[in-house]
Amino acid sequence: SIDGQRFWSSLLAMAEIGPTANGGSCRLALTEEDAAGRHLLIEWCEALGCTLRVDRVGNLFFRRAGRRDDLDPVACGSHLDTQPKGGRFDGILGVLAGLEVFRTLHDQGIVTERPLELIVWTNEEGSRFAPAMVASGTYAGEFSEAYTLAREDRDGVTLGESLEVTGFAGEMPVGEPCLASFFELHIEQGPVLEEEREAIGVVTGVQGMRWFDVTLRGQSAHAGPTPMAYRRDALAACARLIDRLQGHALADISGGTKVTFGCLEIDSPSRNVIPGEVRLTVDLRHVVETELDALEARFQRELAELAEGFGIETASERIWASPVVNFDAGCIDAVERATQAQGVAYRRMMSGAGHDAVYVSRVAPTSMIFIPCRDGISHNEAEYASPEHCALGAQVLFDAMLERASL
Amino acid sequence: SIDGQRFWSSLLAMAEIGPTANGGSCRLALTEEDAAGRHLLIEWCEALGCTLRVDRVGNLFFRRAGRRDDLDPVACGSHLDTQPKGGRFDGILGVLAGLEVFRTLHDQGIVTERPLELIVWTNEEGSRFAPAMVASGTYAGEFSEAYTLAREDRDGVTLGESLEVTGFAGEMPVGEPCLASFFELHIEQGPVLEEEREAIGVVTGVQGMRWFDVTLRGQSAHAGPTPMAYRRDALAACARLIDRLQGHALADISGGTKVTFGCLEIDSPSRNVIPGEVRLTVDLRHVVETELDALEARFQRELAELAEGFGIETASERIWASPVVNFDAGCIDAVERATQAQGVAYRRMMSGAGHDAVYVSRVAPTSMIFIPCRDGISHNEAEYASPEHCALGAQVLFDAMLERASL
Ligand SMILES: NC(=O)NCCC(=O)O
Ligand SMILES: NC(=O)NCCC(=O)O
Repeated sequence: SIDGQRFWSSLLAMAEIGPTANGGSCRLALTEEDAAGRHLLIEWCEALGCTLRVDRVGNLFFRRAGRRDDLDPVACGSHLDTQPKGGRFDGILGVLAGLEVFRTLHDQGIVTERPLELIVWTNEEGSRFAPAMVASGTYAGEFSEAYTLAREDRDGVTLGESLEVTGFAGEMPVGEPCLASFFELHIEQGPVLEEEREAIGVVTGVQGMRWFDVTLRGQSAHAGPTPMAYRRDALAACARLIDRLQGHALADISGGTKVTFGCLEIDSPSRNVIPGEVRLTVDLRHVVETELDALEARFQRELAELAEGFGIETASERIWASPVVNFDAGCIDAVERATQAQGVAYRRMMSGAGHDAVYVSRVAPTSMIFIPCRDGISHNEAEYASPEHCALGAQVLFDAMLERASL
Repeated sequence: SIDGQRFWSSLLAMAEIGPTANGGSCRLALTEEDAAGRHLLIEWCEALGCTLRVDRVGNLFFRRAGRRDDLDPVACGSHLDTQPKGGRFDGILGVLAGLEVFRTLHDQGIVTERPLELIVWTNEEGSRFAPAMVASGTYAGEFSEAYTLAREDRDGVTLGESLEVTGFAGEMPVGEPCLASFFELHIEQGPVLEEEREAIGVVTGVQGMRWFDVTLRGQSAHAGPTPMAYRRDALAACARLIDRLQGHALADISGGTKVTFGCLEIDSPSRNVIPGEVRLTVDLRHVVETELDALEARFQRELAELAEGFGIETASERIWASPVVNFDAGCIDAVERATQAQGVAYRRMMSGAGHDAVYVSRVAPTSMIFIPCRDGISHNEAEYASPEHCALGAQVLFDAMLERASL
């Protein structure tokens, strides 16, 4: 009953704002391009008779009136900002699917019992202002309004200043309105649905994540005259750590354990110098919190062993942790029923990545809907989801929202 | 019989040209500072009545006449150029020890049978103009004069232009004069002599070296939603390679095998992105050429196995190779006898690093003398050798040269 063609056209129209050389989008949070994207959405929503409220961190709330406007709304949404070389789907899909839900209801003259709300969360990507998901986090009480407004970009411009410049410094207190339910449609950003030929992921929660900065300090020395036995090679130690933890994660046949080393930097690298100091980032994830604890303990143990075995000093700092999230059973079931109604192959799954829904789930019944994306590629101009999968996702969102919006 | 105090003073005086913040020296090849260092030496040598000839790649040859000037000279030397944050001894030691030999002979009115030659090789370090040891290599026929003059620094200035600017573009054809013997005194640049409490290394040759640029190409993907089993992680593969080869080298109890990974770079690194491409430098060394062949074969085998095990593509390019060098038995023995005359602990050893003597040894009977340096540290402002060890090294050089300069 939603219009897949119209939905696809709106995705392409949004992608024309801040287009990149290789078919992606660049709309960094609260830049001119991001503002232009927001204005296009505002235009579209106003044509449907929705009312817009903007909170003090720039989150947009488009309300479609229901029969019982005294009740909390059923909401959906995601984000419109992108990575510097971002794709056309990450975030945008979930926002414009909400628009498509509103348009379909409008065409068919349907008025739901509960009001509906389409939400655009500010600065989800964290590319311009770190950390990521900061405005949905503020809404959910994880960050204070003052903290969020003071986030600075590379040039020292604050998030608060950018809200003023773009005209998105709203009046509504952050944390309003209360939501009866929240649904976020998103591309999977991984390869599982595509590989398993499944069309929908019914997302039951989000795995726990912990980020670490690690330093390994040995002694730099000339590669030629320094015998192996005398060396305190920080890179050799680092390689052992990576290989051990990688092997451990691969050995977990449940697939629950994930370890990633995204950045590795040698201090003053030179071809014929033994690395004296290496900095490494570690990203540990697990779907079970106690297993994540065990993974962190193992990582610390391996690190301590290196210090002995390689004659080096090690330091690690945990810079971020996001606990395992379990979404609301009622919202999950609503998504599953809506999926089953489409008669497509699907799976219940945990999200591997963080999303605005992580924070929102702390204050409102929440779940997510995933669709496959080509080769699992995301945060990349080549990001792609088929029109069929996009339409299917929007339809599931439509059905789940309508179920929850009735009394 | 050499004057250790005078020698030490000349080392300190040279260090005052291009001094660095932390007590080191910066005299990059053929800069103003390097030229000033050369002029100081010229002044000192002219005071001794030496004659200077300069070849077309700027190598300096100071000749002290002998009784039989029809015979080839006995030579010593090293380099005066330094790393950007170099020490006060690497290279300088060998040049100023030659000066001290000349001064001592001058004071004592000694005239040798063969003439003597003190040589300053241009651009040994390769910091400003790659490759290293290029001017001694040209002298020995490894590089053409045209190739060497065309070497460019970071700003596109050629070695040839810098010779003109500094006034060191000489007239003597490169390859002249023939040398009866060549001795190079140098700091060890490693920890062995210090650890073993030995005062002199009688250098019997130089280990073979091979340099490689390696690329590992997998697939970058989001750290969160990509299961371990689906990954093509270029860094995890790289870590396995490093750990395997490191283990192999450590297992060689002869100590002959050395492997070093000096540079490792991830393409577009990000904390929550699986590295898609990694570039690594590999430095393989061995004191036996056939063992170095076997080491290279093992490295290539490990690399091929990675490609399979990690689902990645690998490429490696051998960008430099320096075969094992065995110095001249007569020159080695002369150094050993001179060392024994001092009654100090010493060892016969292979040089771990390349030196100008590597190339010179192709065209003249050659050997080297090592003295300990503190903590084995070199290419570093903290580089240090004691006045006692410096004096001892100069004395051994003096005795070895005098032995070879008689008929
Ligand atoms: N979706 C997304 O990229 N979130 C950022 C946090 C994470 O790495 O999962
Ligand atoms: N002495 C020195 O640093 N030589 C450069 C070549 C090498 O790495 O051994």
